[in-house]
Amino acid sequence: MGMTPGTLQSTTTSTSTITAYSALIQRAREAQLLGSTGHILSWDQETMMPPGGIDHRSQQMGLLARLHHQMLTDPAIAEAIAECESDRGFCEGDSIESANVRELRKDFDRATKLPPRLVSELAEVSGKGQHEWAGARSANDFARFRPWLERLVHLNREKAACLGVPQGGEPWDALAETFEPGCTAATVVKVFTPLRERLRVLIGELMSSSHKPSNRFNETKLPVDAQAQFVRMVVESIGFDFERGRLDTSTHPFCGGSHCDDVRMTTRYTESCLNDALGSSMHEAGHGMYEQGLLRSAIGTPVGEAVSLGIHESQSRLWENQVGRSNTFWKWCGPQLQRHFGACAAGFTHDEFYGAANVVEPGFIRVDADEATYNMHVMVRFELERLLMSGALDPKDLPGEWNRRYKEYLGVNVPDDRRGCLQDVHWSMGAFGYFPTYTLGTLYSAQFFDSATRAIGGLEAGFALGEFAPLRAWLNSQIHAHGRRYSPSALCLRVTGSELSSEPYLKYLEGKLRPLYSL
Amino acid sequence: MGMTPGTLQSTTTSTSTITAYSALIQRAREAQLLGSTGHILSWDQETMMPPGGIDHRSQQMGLLARLHHQMLTDPAIAEAIAECESDRGFCEGDSIESANVRELRKDFDRATKLPPRLVSELAEVSGKGQHEWAGARSANDFARFRPWLERLVHLNREKAACLGVPQGGEPWDALAETFEPGCTAATVVKVFTPLRERLRVLIGELMSSSHKPSNRFNETKLPVDAQAQFVRMVVESIGFDFERGRLDTSTHPFCGGSHCDDVRMTTRYTESCLNDALGSSMHEAGHGMYEQGLLRSAIGTPVGEAVSLGIHESQSRLWENQVGRSNTFWKWCGPQLQRHFGACAAGFTHDEFYGAANVVEPGFIRVDADEATYNMHVMVRFELERLLMSGALDPKDLPGEWNRRYKEYLGVNVPDDRRGCLQDVHWSMGAFGYFPTYTLGTLYSAQFFDSATRAIGGLEAGFALGEFAPLRAWLNSQIHAHGRRYSPSALCLRVTGSELSSEPYLKYLEGKLRPLYSL
Repeated sequence: MGMTPGTLQSTTTSTSTITAYSALIQRAREAQLLGSTGHILSWDQETMMPPGGIDHRSQQMGLLARLHHQMLTDPAIAEAIAECESDRGFCEGDSIESANVRELRKDFDRATKLPPRLVSELAEVSGKGQHEWAGARSANDFARFRPWLERLVHLNREKAACLGVPQGGEPWDALAETFEPGCTAATVVKVFTPLRERLRVLIGELMSSSHKPSNRFNETKLPVDAQAQFVRMVVESIGFDFERGRLDTSTHPFCGGSHCDDVRMTTRYTESCLNDALGSSMHEAGHGMYEQGLLRSAIGTPVGEAVSLGIHESQSRLWENQVGRSNTFWKWCGPQLQRHFGACAAGFTHDEFYGAANVVEPGFIRVDADEATYNMHVMVRFELERLLMSGALDPKDLPGEWNRRYKEYLGVNVPDDRRGCLQDVHWSMGAFGYFPTYTLGTLYSAQFFDSATRAIGGLEAGFALGEFAPLRAWLNSQIHAHGRRYSPSALCLRVTGSELSSEPYLKYLEGKLRPLYSL
Repeated sequence: MGMTPGTLQSTTTSTSTITAYSALIQRAREAQLLGSTGHILSWDQETMMPPGGIDHRSQQMGLLARLHHQMLTDPAIAEAIAECESDRGFCEGDSIESANVRELRKDFDRATKLPPRLVSELAEVSGKGQHEWAGARSANDFARFRPWLERLVHLNREKAACLGVPQGGEPWDALAETFEPGCTAATVVKVFTPLRERLRVLIGELMSSSHKPSNRFNETKLPVDAQAQFVRMVVESIGFDFERGRLDTSTHPFCGGSHCDDVRMTTRYTESCLNDALGSSMHEAGHGMYEQGLLRSAIGTPVGEAVSLGIHESQSRLWENQVGRSNTFWKWCGPQLQRHFGACAAGFTHDEFYGAANVVEPGFIRVDADEATYNMHVMVRFELERLLMSGALDPKDLPGEWNRRYKEYLGVNVPDDRRGCLQDVHWSMGAFGYFPTYTLGTLYSAQFFDSATRAIGGLEAGFALGEFAPLRAWLNSQIHAHGRRYSPSALCLRVTGSELSSEPYLKYLEGKLRPLYSL
């Protein structure tokens, strides 16, 4: 595992390298510490802040972003990095130290390309944009959000230009690199095009089957307070540590926080469907356990950070789907549920519980989508944000283009913008280049779960007994604890022995859904 | 009112002064903006943070304190201040601009006396100290808190030495100046000594009276959820704006937040006594309305900040006592309460409600104390922190000295440290020199209320009808909107026509309590 940062001792490394590395790590930790204060403020904005606080909060976020950027681009960091890099022996191999130097070099080069004014403006406008988006969404009023979208598109195109578009690439690529190192629009298209075809066929078959799983449990009203207690029990059972984290309520579920010992997840409850809250909570708990599982001694350095959003999403999707929608999970969860809710949840069979978690039905809302149609939603967004970034799509034409694609990909008529292009928070936060990580994560999740199943005897059988610790421990040692030590693709190869592929996912999906639909 | 900062225009002021003043205000606002992020993190620590987050949070607070101090002590600030000061005409009188320059000079001189290391260490140790105190308190274990107390006493004595003890003064004075400009131990003693004597006589008379007000309502169990709804209604009725603030639950009620549009209050509920939550919520709402009432255009500059903790406390005590424990308030509140709680609160007479809010009974706990005994609790703390700061009292001897004084001043035997010297959060937060502001605020509150009664016709009669807006508006224009424009003593003179005196308070207290006890 190499040495942990901060306690570096070596007989072969020169004193000046050791000094430079220590100075570098100290600065990296300090920048991360300041950045982490902004994470708490973001969480607070979504969960606690009174509405009147938005202007001041945006100013706080702008200032923190500027100070953070100042720390990241301090010339002393460049000097320390160069000093470490000049020691060839130190930077060879994949020790924790060499990985930290490699990743800090990337971060520094990237940060110095951005003017401080842009960094601060993006943070301010994102904060306010998100707030305005929430208002526009609940008022179903795209016109109200449009000027903010235009400003955010403009700022992000400027950002892409500053970062530099890779040879043969496009502006979208420059932005996606932040979220998923190594990801370009071209590589995404290569994965998405055949995947879309296979999913289209599968969805068609499922929809035309005369046998469908029962949806009855999804139409059962359960009191929200009791749902919250139940969801907390499940999330704790699968391994989220509430001594080092929280679960609150917000319009859009998310997982934030500022440290492995202070992880903040949110979910949301609807009286009529426990599976909404249960699914989103297990999803966020997957993110949360990744954060809680980072190497504590490396916190504040790249090796103590999640490697990419795609890998992050693999953890959330794995707990939400491979676990939370599995046959054996419901053998445990069904009886727990009946004990907890008493009469309200009596009279359901195992097949009804398991079926309700796996009903496929094309709809308008991404976060409510089943596993088969989910990726179609992501593809729509990827295509649109790519066009927005290249300038080929004017923000004013977004609703029309959105609705046209929903008809084409999912066969549905979007009834209004609230359930259309205003549904997601991402663009309002200034996050362009983010969406494909949802599908990449979904593909990773199936591939990782295959490896876990091979590595852990009786893995799925254990779920029926409420045994989740072996899976969590495996994910921790294989994925969480490495942080950014390996690139996403190197990590995938290391954990699964193969490059990322859609095959495990399609095999998993078809293998589960076809029997449920008697195909 | 003069000009608002940031929009300075003048025909007599030189261009260089205008430039310097604008630069000064911009830097002051930025420092305040960064400081305000720490206020949200402090609130979060007390209300939301999972226990595991404490170490990282302390580091965040240490870093923010250091960066904030760096901004406050930037030599460019000194230059801008000196430039403004050199323009005699600009700095004469009490315009908003001259007040800002005067106060920023004080802040700068004070900040530069403190080494950055001490600032950061105090912030870190205070955060952790507070956390350890909470643990020690609930475990009733003074020995666990003692090392933290020793460290905090040591750091604060160092701080006092850096700040410089005024001629003929003592270390406590240097610390008290932060909380109450112009306050010294000697001036406090001068106020406290005669006050103690008068209170001792009054308490003696009340305790030996054969007629006491009914305590029955304080022994009535009311569901906590319903209490929370009720308290929120009252707080909103007296004028706290929930669009620009929150009310949450914490062990120790407090009022924090980061801006006049984002004020965070807390309270606590006990099933057996609504008056606990009601009193503490009205108290915190008094603080909250002060913060919400600051001059918006001056936020981020001294004129947009509360002038002192004593004046702050005058606002909280006024709403808690002069309003919340008044006869006419209960003519409104009693029927509201009976409507809200239904059968649970039926069968109480007005006299029983009003009486229960005014029962006098010497006890151990400051925050539960009635108006007559409250100041005795404060005096105990003042004497002890003065001795701790001078070095005459060893922290290890604190429990003994605490208990001895409680016996002497309040005639009670403190049963344990949890209900003794571990009850308050202040010293664990590193706040020495703070306590007397509670009594000063209490005295100010009575004096201000007298002026309000003279200025507003039918003020108290209005309470019976739920009319609180005239009082709030008066406090806003007389006190809130001035921020630090006038010193506490100048403000008192301006608002009431007199220097601070105990007389209005004693007159108010005796005038209310003696009839309630049939004296």
